[in-house]
Amino acid sequence: MALRGGLPSESGAVGVEGPRLVEEALRSACPIRAVLFSESGARHHTRLAPYLDRPEVAIPVLHTTDRLFEGIADTENPQGVAALVTPRPTSLEEIIRTGEGCSSALILVLVGVQDPGNVGTILRTAAAFGASAAITAASGQSGTASPFAPKALRASAGAALHLPVVGGHAAAAAIEQLRAANIYVMATSSRESDSNSQPLLTPWQVNWCRPVALLIGNEGQGLPEEVERAADARIRIPISSSVESLNAAAAAAVLFYEAARQRSS
Amino acid sequence: MALRGGLPSESGAVGVEGPRLVEEALRSACPIRAVLFSESGARHHTRLAPYLDRPEVAIPVLHTTDRLFEGIADTENPQGVAALVTPRPTSLEEIIRTGEGCSSALILVLVGVQDPGNVGTILRTAAAFGASAAITAASGQSGTASPFAPKALRASAGAALHLPVVGGHAAAAAIEQLRAANIYVMATSSRESDSNSQPLLTPWQVNWCRPVALLIGNEGQGLPEEVERAADARIRIPISSSVESLNAAAAAAVLFYEAARQRSS
Repeated sequence: MALRGGLPSESGAVGVEGPRLVEEALRSACPIRAVLFSESGARHHTRLAPYLDRPEVAIPVLHTTDRLFEGIADTENPQGVAALVTPRPTSLEEIIRTGEGCSSALILVLVGVQDPGNVGTILRTAAAFGASAAITAASGQSGTASPFAPKALRASAGAALHLPVVGGHAAAAAIEQLRAANIYVMATSSRESDSNSQPLLTPWQVNWCRPVALLIGNEGQGLPEEVERAADARIRIPISSSVESLNAAAAAAVLFYEAARQRSS
Repeated sequence: MALRGGLPSESGAVGVEGPRLVEEALRSACPIRAVLFSESGARHHTRLAPYLDRPEVAIPVLHTTDRLFEGIADTENPQGVAALVTPRPTSLEEIIRTGEGCSSALILVLVGVQDPGNVGTILRTAAAFGASAAITAASGQSGTASPFAPKALRASAGAALHLPVVGGHAAAAAIEQLRAANIYVMATSSRESDSNSQPLLTPWQVNWCRPVALLIGNEGQGLPEEVERAADARIRIPISSSVESLNAAAAAAVLFYEAARQRSS
């Protein structure tokens, strides 16, 4: 069992550390391969017992020394409890099929978001405002950090375990499939309006009460221009001229909030 | 000239590093004591020349070796340019006097936000959505990180240099003075509604088109209960039950966006 790295191994499992994230994993629909306690981590057993002591699940519980645990842990001050988790199985096709014709579909598409902390924070915010699924995509310039990397999982507070998440697709192909299923694809943009015919809307001009996918781009560069152009519309958040831009996580928070606001009324 | 630390020294000056932040400082209304270039940082001179070569300001420009620069720099890979800046002078009284009766007043009050990165990110977002001033306050439990710490300045992308910012006040005293000036004070809350008579509103139920101050609390604990109770109203952002809470920066982004949305229409 290797926790380091956090990317799904060949077996498809990821390591999850600390009592809070392990609890989130146990509460989620994700299959749990095993839970591991170190000697000093055994104090967390009481908190997790209600999930572990269900006869219908039979999760293997392993015990190890503190020293061995430190050797496989990713964090500097490991809390002595970890789980090996299989992220809930899904596919781009399944996410799109579920979203098609479903007015509550709200799909996050990350394109080249490289910082694992940002990926986690954006997933947490999206889930808080009712996102139904997430796609982590690559563009020409860069891929998106894995939502299952330890730093991303911590920043997401476990949201990556609750939401259907799929990776490994090129942005262009994912957008094409989403649009073919009549899911309205919107690109966050910091570019000035240009002569093309694509609508450029404020967040409150967008009609969020329909199946929607929202593209969020790289922290520094935003979305590649060809990805922006492939969307149905572009959104620009109006901001003061004294500030150059919002960071990617703040922009995502604002847009998912606007979707939730419109859908709640 | 010591850049390390970033807190205003006895002289009231703070160190600012890197071409982007130095440019922000030069664009701001803050008095600049000096600009310092290392040998390898001299390449940034062209970018900054339009600000430096104004006869009416006469900013001292110093040159140093790379090695000496590295010794006083705060960052690991210093970019060889720094400035010593006096934050724009202001006071709580001035911020309140300016806000009184001004319907565009939108004052950020940070109470016990301890991570400098969060302080900077929240300042950047607040400035982007038209905040008019910021107060960094302490509560019983903890103070707020300095907005002029290097990590906070970087995360704020210089917003702390453009916005009037004042620190060193207790939250309770600041709230009392704001309310006495008829500035509507709102507390972000994650507590369930209780039996007291304080209104608990969604962000879109709040009327933001009047002088407003918004209290943002500590990352883990939120606002102390007595600070919440001292406000005119509490705001709660409705979120999905699958997520425990938003992080402080995401909550701030959403609330300042909502203010900007209402004020723009």
